[in-house]
Amino acid sequence: MTQKIPTRIYLNEDEMPRYWYNLRADMKEKPDPILHPGTLKPVVNADMEPIFCKEAVKQELDDNTKLIPIPEGIQNFYRAYRPAALIRAYYLEKELGTPAEIYYKFEGTNTSGSHKLNSAGPQTFYAKEEGLKSLTTETGAGQWGTALAMACAFYGLDLTVYMVKVSSEQKPYRKAVMETYGAKVIPSPSNTTESGRKILAADPNTGGSLGCAISEAVEAAIKTDKCRYVLGSVLNHVLLHQSVIGLETKIALDKYNIKPDIIIGCAGGGSNVGGLIAPFMGEKLAGKSNTRFIAVEPASCPSFTRGRYAYDFADTAQTTPLLRMYTLGCGFIPSANHAGGLRYHGMSPILSKLYHDGHLEARSEIQTDVFAAAIRFMKTEGILPAPESSHAIKAAIDEALECKKTGEKKVILFGLSGTGYFDLSAYMSYNAKTLSDQVPTDEDLQKGFASIPNIPQNK
Amino acid sequence: MTQKIPTRIYLNEDEMPRYWYNLRADMKEKPDPILHPGTLKPVVNADMEPIFCKEAVKQELDDNTKLIPIPEGIQNFYRAYRPAALIRAYYLEKELGTPAEIYYKFEGTNTSGSHKLNSAGPQTFYAKEEGLKSLTTETGAGQWGTALAMACAFYGLDLTVYMVKVSSEQKPYRKAVMETYGAKVIPSPSNTTESGRKILAADPNTGGSLGCAISEAVEAAIKTDKCRYVLGSVLNHVLLHQSVIGLETKIALDKYNIKPDIIIGCAGGGSNVGGLIAPFMGEKLAGKSNTRFIAVEPASCPSFTRGRYAYDFADTAQTTPLLRMYTLGCGFIPSANHAGGLRYHGMSPILSKLYHDGHLEARSEIQTDVFAAAIRFMKTEGILPAPESSHAIKAAIDEALECKKTGEKKVILFGLSGTGYFDLSAYMSYNAKTLSDQVPTDEDLQKGFASIPNIPQNK
Repeated sequence: MTQKIPTRIYLNEDEMPRYWYNLRADMKEKPDPILHPGTLKPVVNADMEPIFCKEAVKQELDDNTKLIPIPEGIQNFYRAYRPAALIRAYYLEKELGTPAEIYYKFEGTNTSGSHKLNSAGPQTFYAKEEGLKSLTTETGAGQWGTALAMACAFYGLDLTVYMVKVSSEQKPYRKAVMETYGAKVIPSPSNTTESGRKILAADPNTGGSLGCAISEAVEAAIKTDKCRYVLGSVLNHVLLHQSVIGLETKIALDKYNIKPDIIIGCAGGGSNVGGLIAPFMGEKLAGKSNTRFIAVEPASCPSFTRGRYAYDFADTAQTTPLLRMYTLGCGFIPSANHAGGLRYHGMSPILSKLYHDGHLEARSEIQTDVFAAAIRFMKTEGILPAPESSHAIKAAIDEALECKKTGEKKVILFGLSGTGYFDLSAYMSYNAKTLSDQVPTDEDLQKGFASIPNIPQNK
Repeated sequence: MTQKIPTRIYLNEDEMPRYWYNLRADMKEKPDPILHPGTLKPVVNADMEPIFCKEAVKQELDDNTKLIPIPEGIQNFYRAYRPAALIRAYYLEKELGTPAEIYYKFEGTNTSGSHKLNSAGPQTFYAKEEGLKSLTTETGAGQWGTALAMACAFYGLDLTVYMVKVSSEQKPYRKAVMETYGAKVIPSPSNTTESGRKILAADPNTGGSLGCAISEAVEAAIKTDKCRYVLGSVLNHVLLHQSVIGLETKIALDKYNIKPDIIIGCAGGGSNVGGLIAPFMGEKLAGKSNTRFIAVEPASCPSFTRGRYAYDFADTAQTTPLLRMYTLGCGFIPSANHAGGLRYHGMSPILSKLYHDGHLEARSEIQTDVFAAAIRFMKTEGILPAPESSHAIKAAIDEALECKKTGEKKVILFGLSGTGYFDLSAYMSYNAKTLSDQVPTDEDLQKGFASIPNIPQNK
């Protein structure tokens, strides 16, 4: 191939995807069904509609429709910040001296700073269409809360964000940007909900967790008229929306006839890597490619690599439906020394199933290695990456250096899911060498596993 | 015209400019020459080369070469983050209900968060080519310092940044990002230079100013082997590099046969608006268009609208060559209540001449109006703008609302020079209604004017 590949490939507006891709439709082995926590039977739409928007529930439970049209009202929202660039990492390749070709899909140029906007828009659009007035959600590192605040400002809905307390203290500017978009931000656990009061009673000094904040947000949504809860990762409909990342990437690569050998994404709840890999995994499951897929998670919250594949709650207060997923237990809280997101105890059921069946690899990385990779990347490619995204950078560099050893000219694609503008205190700690690498002990894990519900499906 | 204009227009890599455009070559009335502060005669290259890189000096003093090739090594740097998107503000137009078409060139998607990288790259490239080992500079709000830190990491030069002290205290994360790129950041005034010690002796509690920081950076460059000073605005060669903004914009508009009626940019030292308007102003000066050009400055630092057109120093310590420009006096320091950049006492000599000759309009805005416009913009267009850039937003909205009154379907183009990720404390103050609008009194101005040198050229 002699065609020169540009540093940045942008799709034209008329090349942008008109459909989301529902990977489940192409999985012969489907993820296990979501269970009602009371009856332990598969949930039906009516079970979930008091919590989520109807359309989100419909998408959540649809394992069969392969292509789901993106409504014009959402395409219009996407046009406000998409297409995202697919970037050839020429500078990084040169610095590494690797024969590999490295590409990354950069989702961080919107103000929320990450891919999260891709699902915040659709979920808010549906809420508006269904006549709702307000939404609630949780946020940890703040990317999801910011994205949703932007979407709610765009569509004109009120928003309450329960923000993990330790994060709201470490990131006052995250709070400020959400508030500037008009959202109400409540540090969680708070005394505004029963779940919050219970958690505070048990530990008044807790810094909170995503699981706690979810409990509060769900409770607040149920108790408020014309209000629903929205979640930024883990769930099937979120991965569906995020398939726009992979679809755009595939259209761009296909234009230049580039076939990735390895696709890498960071994994917290799985929405970013799940969205990126979706159409490529569909090809692999159909026997049309041999692409390797690698999910990279923090060693301090290793749900894939050290978790159990079991039915578990999505939240700490154990109020949500049960998801079969790789989980550290809904009571697991990662060490406070862990900087950045990817702190969720569980993992997308779709990705969990793919991992369980051997279609997806996973690895974990300690955070000082991740920051070192981030700085290597930013000094060559220019972009200040989010600590989350830097897990993917670390693995991409490792794979490229492996190619240097073997002389293989592999094509490596990774997801650069977001920027690190709000993570500079973590970079400062790394620079000052005060960032440590505590990973959970086996005892820590056992404590977490004890919170996984003891139900027949888990025997 | 029935062709649908996309929300975002990106150039392909092969459409990107290969030349900078030197507007001075097309100005029949040239800006007045730079004077040597000792002899009061026009400077020659040898006068400036102890301070600046040779190529920068050559470009600075070249009033005649219209197109200056962008070396491949700089085109390679530009490809790391350009092209910048030209965005049709469909959402803002709709919210305003204006018949006007609004476009903006968005320079904020690189990590430095602004257009400053367009000159940081070239200046660092030339320094490297000329065998230098290190650079010094000053930074106020931090955009220029960050851009230069990125460029120095890219090309492998050491960098010392003198950062206005009040700004380094308000923006610890700006300092962190520069340091993460490997730069040394010194709050100014400091005791590391004679100029700094003098300024501190006169006022130990001063928060500093750009003019002070320039004095320190120039002194440090002169006293260090294989080191030069670089400046991020005001000077001719900086505006030359920034012409890439206007050139890309014009190529994109020409593809769709769009002719702007009004072009608006914010003005501190003038590099952003000067770069944006350059090729369009060239057409106007040649009698080929009737475009209006508007520079928007803060009411708290109103060099165009309340300054004098006179020869003045570029720095507070009065060590630099003399520039004929609109100036508030090199001793002027804007009120500490002013948030964000655009704090420089003077203005680009090129723009000053154009303004003086009636080719360019100027207006000033108070900061609470600017933040109100910023928030209106970010809620519709999604992007969190820099306070600096929001001056242009304010004027663009005003012009669009004027069109709404008159029913005119004008084409308005403005420069969105950067993002506000590092300005959230200012947004927080605005949200909390603690931001005030102190503008200089006539007495304040007189005090500033007293620092303008009393030389025959100023009679």
